[in-house]
Amino acid sequence: VTGVTRRGRGSYALAGVDVVGWGTVVGKMEAAGPLGADFDEALTDDLWGEPSYEAAERALAVAALDRALERARVARDEVDLVVGGDLLDQLYSTNFAGRAHQVPLAGVFSACATFTEAVGLAGLLIAAGGPAQAAALAASHHLAAERQFRFPVEFGYQRPPTASWTATAGGAVVLSRDRGPVRVVGVTFGRVVDRGAKNPMDMGTAMAPAAADTLTRHLENFGRRWRDYDAVVTGDLGHVGSAILRELVADSDDFQARHDDCGRSLYDTSQDAHNGGSGAGCAASVFAGPLMRRLREGSIRRLLLLATGALFSPTSYQQGESIPCIAHAVEFEARGGET
Amino acid sequence: VTGVTRRGRGSYALAGVDVVGWGTVVGKMEAAGPLGADFDEALTDDLWGEPSYEAAERALAVAALDRALERARVARDEVDLVVGGDLLDQLYSTNFAGRAHQVPLAGVFSACATFTEAVGLAGLLIAAGGPAQAAALAASHHLAAERQFRFPVEFGYQRPPTASWTATAGGAVVLSRDRGPVRVVGVTFGRVVDRGAKNPMDMGTAMAPAAADTLTRHLENFGRRWRDYDAVVTGDLGHVGSAILRELVADSDDFQARHDDCGRSLYDTSQDAHNGGSGAGCAASVFAGPLMRRLREGSIRRLLLLATGALFSPTSYQQGESIPCIAHAVEFEARGGET
Repeated sequence: VTGVTRRGRGSYALAGVDVVGWGTVVGKMEAAGPLGADFDEALTDDLWGEPSYEAAERALAVAALDRALERARVARDEVDLVVGGDLLDQLYSTNFAGRAHQVPLAGVFSACATFTEAVGLAGLLIAAGGPAQAAALAASHHLAAERQFRFPVEFGYQRPPTASWTATAGGAVVLSRDRGPVRVVGVTFGRVVDRGAKNPMDMGTAMAPAAADTLTRHLENFGRRWRDYDAVVTGDLGHVGSAILRELVADSDDFQARHDDCGRSLYDTSQDAHNGGSGAGCAASVFAGPLMRRLREGSIRRLLLLATGALFSPTSYQQGESIPCIAHAVEFEARGGET
Repeated sequence: VTGVTRRGRGSYALAGVDVVGWGTVVGKMEAAGPLGADFDEALTDDLWGEPSYEAAERALAVAALDRALERARVARDEVDLVVGGDLLDQLYSTNFAGRAHQVPLAGVFSACATFTEAVGLAGLLIAAGGPAQAAALAASHHLAAERQFRFPVEFGYQRPPTASWTATAGGAVVLSRDRGPVRVVGVTFGRVVDRGAKNPMDMGTAMAPAAADTLTRHLENFGRRWRDYDAVVTGDLGHVGSAILRELVADSDDFQARHDDCGRSLYDTSQDAHNGGSGAGCAASVFAGPLMRRLREGSIRRLLLLATGALFSPTSYQQGESIPCIAHAVEFEARGGET
């Protein structure tokens, strides 16, 4: 039986929504990192046979979706709705992916928090008794993001140690009323938090307060403590933001014992990714790859995934604005031996 | 009693969701047009006391939301969720509006079809028994859009007669399980349709096939004919796209008899808006202003609103790509004398 129960402002408990498919496609660097074995497919080079980095991002988004559909044993035309987004202006890769997959599309944007916004919305729609199956999708490409947000990499600018590395990655899940190995049990939508940070080369510092805000609201609204979770995994805070978040949450030792960050875990320190991975595809691929494996294997039984987004644009940055941030939380439970 | 019933792929019937608040803020030119008397507030000039056109767009989005909340007699902190979007890179105005209103935020993007995507998602979440009240919001600003998508207006380039005029406008609705004058009864999410049109100065031609696709799917899925509606109102097709749409739909005379287009109706021909209005705020303000008045007065009993979006970006255009388009449909019913 599907259903939604309001658990406080912006927080909803879901019943009857399962992850039945999951798929990931990543770049060469991500495939060479510590999580590489958990991804389905790796780009052979930055363009992957496409005419532009943006087109390559579209191609990897479609490929990640198709991997998830394949696992779910669902055809493209059996999916009611794709809820998805990316970092590019006007959701370039999501919309052109929509032209390829031809599934009704609801485009969403929360920067690097896009994946949990998409999973939250898609999960709620299924719990409502709407779509029978819906997919959530998020993607990013390092070289497309760099030239849009900062400089073309050919410019060779120097990156400070606090800078995050936009991941070349796409992750998709298929959610369904049918039974799968993992349930989507709760969602908390974030509000915009801006403590005045202005440096796009240090998004961890900017985003940590938004992460703390949503985590605190989620725990309060659902009556949870850190000990209720096997893992609390943030999106793209990286080394810098994770250290700050630890100081912002209550019961910090309990938090620290089960906290990990997608961006921090995606690359080895030898890979020169500085603060760690970021991008809409970072949390998407780390969830749909290694975290789904751990949930299926039972080494994580209950997971709180909190993707974090820095909502600046090159225009807002050039106008001297600070960086508004947001974080959306989704809670997952493994069905364990039952499936 | 709230509820959602699937009526076919991407189509859902909603029960128990009402429009309880509506608000509009428009630019001087829109206020001087044929629909001017139906808008709540007009900008005194293009900047409206803000330091940039983008900041003015954020300010008008917040003001439209506040007008809708005021009518709904709901405070900002009583709203569970704002679902909203705009045309600017990384949803500049939506996200900075979120910093101001502090309501949990789900950012969405379907270009000029953003408003019906937002209403559809917000309505489904309420029908699901999730939020008690949610708002849908969309905004655009002529001068912010022009310099992002085309050229700064100071450049003085010539506009062909097929070019649309991005409206300076914001529209918001508050949806609720409480009783209001208008019900949200059905949603159909569009899929991406691209027939190869490449001219961003003629978006009506590009978008008409997407409009026809969603209209056809909505009618089939809900078992409706044109005669079931008092009005079928498209978003931003303008004069050019409306004429093409008429040739693409079945029972064209029945369609034509009840069809209007937000963009076509927003300006007088003397205002030099060529093909008519466009922008995320166009359908939002025309719905939340004149169409809400007509629904409340009873001159429209059942309305099908179909906002249409051209999903290109300056990058995709410069790369020679054609324009993928989308249209999302929302069906409204007046409660009539009951309220």
